[in-house]
Amino acid sequence: MGLCIMIINTEKFRDEIKQRKEYVERCLLEFLPPADSYPALIHEAMHYAVFNGGKRLRPIMVFEGAVLGGADKEEVITAACALELIHTYSLVHDDLPAMDNDEMRRGKPTCHIVYGEANAILTGDALLTAAFYLLAENLKAPKVKAENLVRAIRVVAAAAGSQGMIGGQVLDLQSEGLALDFSTLRKLHSLKTGQLFRAALTTGAILSGMKDSGIAALDKYAASFGLAFQITDDILDVAGNQDLIGKPIGSDAKNHKSTYVSLLGMEKSYRLARVAVESCQEALGYFGPEADFLRQLALHTLNRKN
Amino acid sequence: MGLCIMIINTEKFRDEIKQRKEYVERCLLEFLPPADSYPALIHEAMHYAVFNGGKRLRPIMVFEGAVLGGADKEEVITAACALELIHTYSLVHDDLPAMDNDEMRRGKPTCHIVYGEANAILTGDALLTAAFYLLAENLKAPKVKAENLVRAIRVVAAAAGSQGMIGGQVLDLQSEGLALDFSTLRKLHSLKTGQLFRAALTTGAILSGMKDSGIAALDKYAASFGLAFQITDDILDVAGNQDLIGKPIGSDAKNHKSTYVSLLGMEKSYRLARVAVESCQEALGYFGPEADFLRQLALHTLNRKN
Repeated sequence: MGLCIMIINTEKFRDEIKQRKEYVERCLLEFLPPADSYPALIHEAMHYAVFNGGKRLRPIMVFEGAVLGGADKEEVITAACALELIHTYSLVHDDLPAMDNDEMRRGKPTCHIVYGEANAILTGDALLTAAFYLLAENLKAPKVKAENLVRAIRVVAAAAGSQGMIGGQVLDLQSEGLALDFSTLRKLHSLKTGQLFRAALTTGAILSGMKDSGIAALDKYAASFGLAFQITDDILDVAGNQDLIGKPIGSDAKNHKSTYVSLLGMEKSYRLARVAVESCQEALGYFGPEADFLRQLALHTLNRKN
Repeated sequence: MGLCIMIINTEKFRDEIKQRKEYVERCLLEFLPPADSYPALIHEAMHYAVFNGGKRLRPIMVFEGAVLGGADKEEVITAACALELIHTYSLVHDDLPAMDNDEMRRGKPTCHIVYGEANAILTGDALLTAAFYLLAENLKAPKVKAENLVRAIRVVAAAAGSQGMIGGQVLDLQSEGLALDFSTLRKLHSLKTGQLFRAALTTGAILSGMKDSGIAALDKYAASFGLAFQITDDILDVAGNQDLIGKPIGSDAKNHKSTYVSLLGMEKSYRLARVAVESCQEALGYFGPEADFLRQLALHTLNRKN
């Protein structure tokens, strides 16, 4: 399946993204403890970390998994917000002085710059914990079955854990200053970036009661999506617009990190991203036109500016 | 109800504690990813943090909640291990240089001393995440209902989060060097220590299907138990045996922390601990002799050496 079919309805797609993003932001504000609630410092810091102009891609994927399984977005909104909190916690901890030591994120000082290192560690801990609270809260959705919810919680915890996202960050830190080979780099990013995308899309699908063959197709899509997303991330770190990205260009080089670009060069990296996006489309062969949103989302990733 | 009735069967009680502890240790070893599994560094560090001679009090409480609700210990073993992982993660993060900056814990160098700060942060993150994975895994127990499991996950996440244990740690850090009043100190410790004991005992009860009035009684017991436990902790930090505690005496004073002893003196502190233990016994009025283990556990706390 080629990419040509996808250059349709871009405006509708962008509207849909915008609407979902705004819905997530409203609900995150509703679900988090108020910023001034006791103890105020931690809740203020949680709000600071969460409301920072993120793309809300993972919640958007939770929605899409649910919609493809025949459920409404409202049925999975707490789980969708939970996935965003896990993503946010990972950024807060990755930015810490002991980790990547980044001072800016999306155009604002990072959490530890504003609240200090100890509070930033605790803010990350609190966001991760709040994510599992919100997942459990999804039981309130009338049509979500408790068995499916427990299964989704297990999937999310596995994806975020030592054999998933955290494992990827451990490898990332171990690899600083080393020239990684391609397969190690790919393994690292499939853990660090890919796993949470996979958990997001499959969580929505599991909660909707989708059957396993559909969930497997979405899992495959999300793995390829994660690869495409990471490659374009590496490209933007070299060739992006600093104002749009919100952090200095060249931070990977500064941290002596192997990237797809440093390993393959720009042209080959872009080609690999295109191949990954084609794999996304292939994985969606299981679905009909109802999966056009995901088809466009993959394509959109190739052209993203931030 | 006085304390005199409790000086019975101490040997049986100690045997029971020892058996439960050993059962937890065996299962923790079984449930954690092997120490040499990929990526090895994080799994080795997780094992290092978990297998350090802890008392396993929280899992023991999960068992007891279940047993009082008519379930077997085996039915709640993964949840029991999960509670221990949350306790362990909180110690790893509390010990960090940016927090309490402690170099020794139970006679061994702390996690960040052995594995470095970045890996210690990630080890804590991984233990917290693994805890929710294990909680979800408890669905495999034949008699545990998915609805009750989701409820337990929500209770645990609330107790461990920004309005529970993490909130307590935030207050603790904010309070260093300040002379706290009694009610603030009590609030701080009810969050930092009490909440997780409450979640442990009620998790077992919830999973067993106990009715809400019984769960409420256990919750009350655990809150008083947490207070008694914290007071004796403060006493041991002044008057304990360094070899038995496994860390230097006087660390609270070193960190300029208000404690029950610094606020009330030794004698009044010990008296307050006794009152708390009496409140434990009162809360158990709901139960008959089947709750004797909990009665002894509270009394045991008054006399603990580590």
